[in-house]
Amino acid sequence: MSDFDFDLFVIGGGSGGVRAARVAASLGKRVAIAEEYRFGGTCVIRGCVPKKLFVYASQFPEHFEDAAGYGWTVGETSFDWKTLLANKDHEIARLEGLYRRGLENAGAQLIESRAVLEGPNTIRIVSEDRTVTARHILIATGGRPNPHHALPGSEYAITSDEAFHLDELPKSILIAGGGYIAVEFANIFHGLGVETTLMYRGLEILGRFDMDMRRGLHKAMVDKGITVLTQTSSTGITKRDDGGLEVNLTGGGSKVVDAVMLAVGRTPNTEGLGLEKAGVETGSLGEILVDDYSSTNVESIYALGDVTNRVQLTPVAIHEAMCFIDTVYRNKPTSPDHGTIPTAVFSQPEIGTVGLSEDEAAKQYDTLEIYRAEFRPMRHTLSGRQEKMIMKLVVDAASRRVLGAHILGVDAGEMAQLLGIAVKAKLTKDDFDATMAVHPSAAEELVTMYQPSYLVRKGERVG
Amino acid sequence: MSDFDFDLFVIGGGSGGVRAARVAASLGKRVAIAEEYRFGGTCVIRGCVPKKLFVYASQFPEHFEDAAGYGWTVGETSFDWKTLLANKDHEIARLEGLYRRGLENAGAQLIESRAVLEGPNTIRIVSEDRTVTARHILIATGGRPNPHHALPGSEYAITSDEAFHLDELPKSILIAGGGYIAVEFANIFHGLGVETTLMYRGLEILGRFDMDMRRGLHKAMVDKGITVLTQTSSTGITKRDDGGLEVNLTGGGSKVVDAVMLAVGRTPNTEGLGLEKAGVETGSLGEILVDDYSSTNVESIYALGDVTNRVQLTPVAIHEAMCFIDTVYRNKPTSPDHGTIPTAVFSQPEIGTVGLSEDEAAKQYDTLEIYRAEFRPMRHTLSGRQEKMIMKLVVDAASRRVLGAHILGVDAGEMAQLLGIAVKAKLTKDDFDATMAVHPSAAEELVTMYQPSYLVRKGERVG
Repeated sequence: MSDFDFDLFVIGGGSGGVRAARVAASLGKRVAIAEEYRFGGTCVIRGCVPKKLFVYASQFPEHFEDAAGYGWTVGETSFDWKTLLANKDHEIARLEGLYRRGLENAGAQLIESRAVLEGPNTIRIVSEDRTVTARHILIATGGRPNPHHALPGSEYAITSDEAFHLDELPKSILIAGGGYIAVEFANIFHGLGVETTLMYRGLEILGRFDMDMRRGLHKAMVDKGITVLTQTSSTGITKRDDGGLEVNLTGGGSKVVDAVMLAVGRTPNTEGLGLEKAGVETGSLGEILVDDYSSTNVESIYALGDVTNRVQLTPVAIHEAMCFIDTVYRNKPTSPDHGTIPTAVFSQPEIGTVGLSEDEAAKQYDTLEIYRAEFRPMRHTLSGRQEKMIMKLVVDAASRRVLGAHILGVDAGEMAQLLGIAVKAKLTKDDFDATMAVHPSAAEELVTMYQPSYLVRKGERVG
Repeated sequence: MSDFDFDLFVIGGGSGGVRAARVAASLGKRVAIAEEYRFGGTCVIRGCVPKKLFVYASQFPEHFEDAAGYGWTVGETSFDWKTLLANKDHEIARLEGLYRRGLENAGAQLIESRAVLEGPNTIRIVSEDRTVTARHILIATGGRPNPHHALPGSEYAITSDEAFHLDELPKSILIAGGGYIAVEFANIFHGLGVETTLMYRGLEILGRFDMDMRRGLHKAMVDKGITVLTQTSSTGITKRDDGGLEVNLTGGGSKVVDAVMLAVGRTPNTEGLGLEKAGVETGSLGEILVDDYSSTNVESIYALGDVTNRVQLTPVAIHEAMCFIDTVYRNKPTSPDHGTIPTAVFSQPEIGTVGLSEDEAAKQYDTLEIYRAEFRPMRHTLSGRQEKMIMKLVVDAASRRVLGAHILGVDAGEMAQLLGIAVKAKLTKDDFDATMAVHPSAAEELVTMYQPSYLVRKGERVG
């Protein structure tokens, strides 16, 4: 027997931590997992899952509107925020229960407490004021929204954490940020009837995405009535006597709204974790530094998921957890593969993307063929909605490899998932061309773009 | 100059004929295309396009119902069939215009008449009672619903052709057939509030599809209130004094409905076409027999699309047209590739499929790994709808190749389109496994099924 209380102690009950704890326990390891709030982590409790449920909720007004062109008359509709919150909370509780039962059934010990490091193999269970030891410690404490304390009046603002629990829906909201969380919430609030402003300091929303997606979504959001302010940030927020929040804008002027939401990045949860005591190194943002195998500089301590600030996505954390298991318990050292990750922005319209953007590919390849289609999807021919779908393939002219695929429109996320298989496997444009269309579908556009829309040579667009 | 009036005379203005005529004309060939009804063919005029518009229309009641779980209260709704028909007809007219303009812009001559063969190079324009000659003749006259004259009382029944133009929506309908057209219309009519019965003589609907799809859709249809009678056919239809139609069923009993729709196969349009005069051979169903290059037994005459009864799908006809162009006008003989065609059934829930069914694969491969998931999609956690999604991968254990992918559920057609790229390119299960999930999506299930649900060895299910 080992001299340690546990083979593995996991700090943090989110997607990555739970997966590692559950699988390690199922392999017969003695595992404990500590979580100070609720099992499920950001994804289940205040991220992907409730966010997508809100997205669904916010899409109904468009369904109601679109129905008219199809012969339907819809009576007066109304929305009750508290019903949505209650049903969402019910579902989250159900999922949390599944996470807990999965851990218990595998034989892991659940510890409902904050846990901090006391040394390379020692953990303090804060609420019980006791210490335990473990052969390996896995830190998977995730991240949280950056509270942006530097902004005067930031205490009046909410973040996505609070957005999931607002007592009532504001009549108006200003969301600061241009990343996917800001964009998704702007569309959610707008869809639920909130007068919505998105404010972003950069030139265009959604940095790092393909420019056609960025511009296309920006336009679609403006067309549906969201105010989008780019190259704008706030110099401070003040609370007015009438309860409204006045957001002072760079360049002068201000905007008065019921609520302000900050979505200006996320911060790794490493404060007060005892990293110094254990000698674990962190980076400039507070993230835990790890090697290719998710090992910290301390031999017994690993870290994965958002706290390492590599790629902040649930499936990536889960993948890192499975690689950790292979490395530590299956004698098969495995590095997480962070290449060619398909992903979605659940904006409205949605973005689905995998691989390189045109701009990124142009830096790496001599000649690109760009295939681009912009069209009104069939469902909107009768609804009368003007929203366009954009599809784009970025192809290396020399090898014919499809380097990137980008979609703006309904179901783009589902499409990106399956395009991801093709792009990850390095398939060529010829493989796409050889595929028969499914008609009528939107995705058929992706296999029927036979002629490049234009070329990019040495970074310059040609033709 | 040639001694012929035209380089190419196309009979039939559907998807295949229009594509061939347009491209040949754009290559500088002297092209005529004759159509006796409306340009666009089955797909645009009375097939895929209006069908899918009806599908959209019929889905709104579920949106209205699903809204409640998301906090929405929806007032009384009503449906007006005539509005749907008018808006559909408007869109069809727009598309027909696009087809016509595409042909005209390419320089093809449009002839609005029935055209029949008088010889290997001679065509009679029936409405003008004149003949013209052409170096090549392409027959693309398509097919039509089998009127099933052998059934007593079949004259009281409609087919899909009439379903697109009914003066009013019946209160009840019985649809005979178990193919995709029967199934799609059963869901359309049900969704629009018609009391719907689907009657099929076989053991299970949708022969040739994967059995999980067939059973899963059957169950979903019954669960939503459609009556599905299998192993049942009709011995005759009689018209009652009250206007109702009494459908007598095999095995006794009868069913009284407002309307009967026959969807019992389609017949190639070859009668009265002058095939005998030109010496063109046909098969037992009247279909034109062609070789691997869509050439008939007469050197100057080609045929493609539904009239050849190979694979009756719009994209296949278009593909055959492009191969015809390569073969005849680009000196690059090209056979249509009819292998691994992804396709969709726009039922509710939808089916998307590509490659081999489990049963078909079991006949060809020694050992199969079957990956199968059945789950409630996230959107239905709050709607409360019990409808399940089914996803299935059929994998050859020896080569790890994914032989077939089958999906029942929302967006299955879009998914099948993109899975089609991967399956057509012969990717393996390892390629699927190497793809990161997009979370939360439905399609992520397809890349996260790591353990086979069961094996099939020498045709027998194991484990």
